[in-house]
Amino acid sequence: MPIYDSPNSLSNILHCRRQKLAKLIDFPVVIWAGNTTPRNFAANHFPFRASSHFLYFAGIPLKNAVIRLEEEKLELYIDNITSDVSLWCGETYQREEIADFIGADAAFPLTELETHLFGAATIAVQDPATWTQQSQLLGRWILPLSPPQGIDLELARAIVTLRLIHDDEAIRELVKAADISVKAHLAGMQTVKSASTEAEVRAAMESIIIANNMTTAYNSIVTVHGEVLHNNKYHNPLHSGDLLLADVGAETEMGWAGDITRTFPVSGKFSSTQKDIYDVVLAAHDACIAKIRPGVEYRDIHMLACLTLTEGLVSVGILQGDPANLVERNVHSVFFPHGIGHLLGLDVHDMEDLGDLAGYKEGRNRSDLFGLSYLRLNRSLQSNMLITIEPGFYQVPAILNPARSKYKYLINWEKLELFADVRSIRIEDEVLVTNVGSKVLSADLPTDTSTIEEIIIS
Amino acid sequence: MPIYDSPNSLSNILHCRRQKLAKLIDFPVVIWAGNTTPRNFAANHFPFRASSHFLYFAGIPLKNAVIRLEEEKLELYIDNITSDVSLWCGETYQREEIADFIGADAAFPLTELETHLFGAATIAVQDPATWTQQSQLLGRWILPLSPPQGIDLELARAIVTLRLIHDDEAIRELVKAADISVKAHLAGMQTVKSASTEAEVRAAMESIIIANNMTTAYNSIVTVHGEVLHNNKYHNPLHSGDLLLADVGAETEMGWAGDITRTFPVSGKFSSTQKDIYDVVLAAHDACIAKIRPGVEYRDIHMLACLTLTEGLVSVGILQGDPANLVERNVHSVFFPHGIGHLLGLDVHDMEDLGDLAGYKEGRNRSDLFGLSYLRLNRSLQSNMLITIEPGFYQVPAILNPARSKYKYLINWEKLELFADVRSIRIEDEVLVTNVGSKVLSADLPTDTSTIEEIIIS
Repeated sequence: MPIYDSPNSLSNILHCRRQKLAKLIDFPVVIWAGNTTPRNFAANHFPFRASSHFLYFAGIPLKNAVIRLEEEKLELYIDNITSDVSLWCGETYQREEIADFIGADAAFPLTELETHLFGAATIAVQDPATWTQQSQLLGRWILPLSPPQGIDLELARAIVTLRLIHDDEAIRELVKAADISVKAHLAGMQTVKSASTEAEVRAAMESIIIANNMTTAYNSIVTVHGEVLHNNKYHNPLHSGDLLLADVGAETEMGWAGDITRTFPVSGKFSSTQKDIYDVVLAAHDACIAKIRPGVEYRDIHMLACLTLTEGLVSVGILQGDPANLVERNVHSVFFPHGIGHLLGLDVHDMEDLGDLAGYKEGRNRSDLFGLSYLRLNRSLQSNMLITIEPGFYQVPAILNPARSKYKYLINWEKLELFADVRSIRIEDEVLVTNVGSKVLSADLPTDTSTIEEIIIS
Repeated sequence: MPIYDSPNSLSNILHCRRQKLAKLIDFPVVIWAGNTTPRNFAANHFPFRASSHFLYFAGIPLKNAVIRLEEEKLELYIDNITSDVSLWCGETYQREEIADFIGADAAFPLTELETHLFGAATIAVQDPATWTQQSQLLGRWILPLSPPQGIDLELARAIVTLRLIHDDEAIRELVKAADISVKAHLAGMQTVKSASTEAEVRAAMESIIIANNMTTAYNSIVTVHGEVLHNNKYHNPLHSGDLLLADVGAETEMGWAGDITRTFPVSGKFSSTQKDIYDVVLAAHDACIAKIRPGVEYRDIHMLACLTLTEGLVSVGILQGDPANLVERNVHSVFFPHGIGHLLGLDVHDMEDLGDLAGYKEGRNRSDLFGLSYLRLNRSLQSNMLITIEPGFYQVPAILNPARSKYKYLINWEKLELFADVRSIRIEDEVLVTNVGSKVLSADLPTDTSTIEEIIIS
């Protein structure tokens, strides 16, 4: 467990989080870490990932452990490993040592949990073996895909309140994740010219993450077909005229996520059409970041991105008309069909396991409008929130085809054909809201075309 | 789907596998691919891995698909993706195109499956959402951790019969996996001298796998503490006197696994004590491989490894007595507590999802003896079986401590102390049983200390 500089600091942080939680709720809380999930057979499992809520209050990824919080107290429930397991998996820390390390007030074997559950709220974990156990022990369904009810809902709201606003330790971890994500992207840029497939660039990027003893926070997107928005294949060959879109983020050992996207030319040189559109997207990116400060509505940032992108597309001649009017008609969504970003924390879409509880302020709901409906965050920004800003431009056949009649005159279809070498561009940075405005955690990674070209060629 | 050289070859292979299956059973078979498993929230899932039995009979990793085999016929059940999904995930192949590609005789949406299940046998998949569905649709419990019963057991036995003996296509895939695994190990050796942590060596190895658009077949072991047998941590710093144990294998896009282990010195130079023990392990490795041919009992290969290791440890002075007698007293298990290897195929421990059905010949059961009890394969070898040979030497505190009294005079404990810099050595190769003997699929990766030293230094 030589993870934090001193166990003392970890137990202080966790105590502080419990204090804040205790101010919001007056019932006990039990949080499960979850267990490994089998891949092709039981012993060949996916790498263990503790549930994010557990990581927030327990600090370290303990397999098959449970914590119970009541007022400011912390109890740990975990079984010591048997001697047979220790033969294969090595000596590990005993329950009391772990309890000491995280500052638990008491520690018990898992069998004791059953008698300490009265009146406790919980949050569903993702792995079915554990949520089945949660449901059985608590005597009610605890399902990861169903909205929480009663005290579980109260708990979820309280946790959202805490996790929305990152404390110093969270920010330290998030900075670490951002730093390694930046290094991964630099490695990607430095490899693209000599690589012959997407997979080779992905390897260069992920090897930085692995070498730093981190994992990817999500399945990387590294593709010359970024217009397939969730593209987790890496088999395409790289051609000289292609733009490569890389959406890759590192996750620290404690579970905190990075999330950065860059789009760069395989040849090392943007074509003039690619540069034109890139600069439109970059203008939206920069305009949004410039507006970020406490009190600003994230939805307004999204709408600013839509307007700035539209202005840019008008100026290059792809759109025709008054930008504000075009945005009103939702024309931008043809090329920018997703939201401007999301919360970032222990999850790459932070707390998305709770549906829109974290992303949407109470009383607000998703829009029905295409494009805006995919906005994942609709709240007023507060200091120490971490959000992404990720405008993009995509030529998605499934969107363009119906748009040909719908927006026959607002889009200059002939002009658009000149931009056939711009299938997809996204520029994504991580932005921490601060008291005075914002701080870009991924600022060490350049966004401008000339510096990116220099990195690739160098 | 541009995966196989020609769709025709894939459909022929699959037809051939169905023909063989139809000779063994006379009831219909339904095999589920399974679905993705969520990591920290539903949309952030682990990379999809289709069930191995599905991959064997469907050839390609189709998410949430089902196949039905009856006599030589193949039916595919899969839903076309909706336009909303295609927006995010791109255009994909339609049901009929996929059916055509794999040579299915008919294709249906998933809703049709329910009416085609009468009398069908199946195999449990790993992901709970899918095995719950299997159980509901078939009206009986289909659990991955419970032994199959009735026709499901008959099916499992028939599949074991097929999958034990690899066909040409399987061997082609296994050779691909072995080749990339070899390259990964070479990269590891070439990195170890300049690396400062285990994680950096792991990164060099896995980046080869990722760059070739493959995945790891299991969680890599890359550690200076190989005496922790299942070590999936990579945080240890590398010191000049350390031996690094790397157990890393690639898995092809179609799911076929590689599995190789090498142990090499961080400094590039084995110490004399390390070389002494390494050569003992290598002698066992070579002796076992030399004996492999059809008709040989794998258990005898295991016992040969025990004897050869014991002879070597007697000659270096760690064990005292007659080697055959020492093996009879199970002294070797103090330093070699696991089996000599296992089946390799679509799973790194092939068909371990079926318990010991594949590994152990009908009527044979696991031994109670420490060490031998971990032998995963106890069958007579046949041509086109692929097995691993992986003798090792480990100083596991949890085993050595009780052995101090049990084997007080048979182990020269003072002498053993001189070998403190040899915490763990394992040498593992993949061996294909052939008509005339065997072929080592990982033969391009050297095993001898001097060539390994040359690779590291070069």
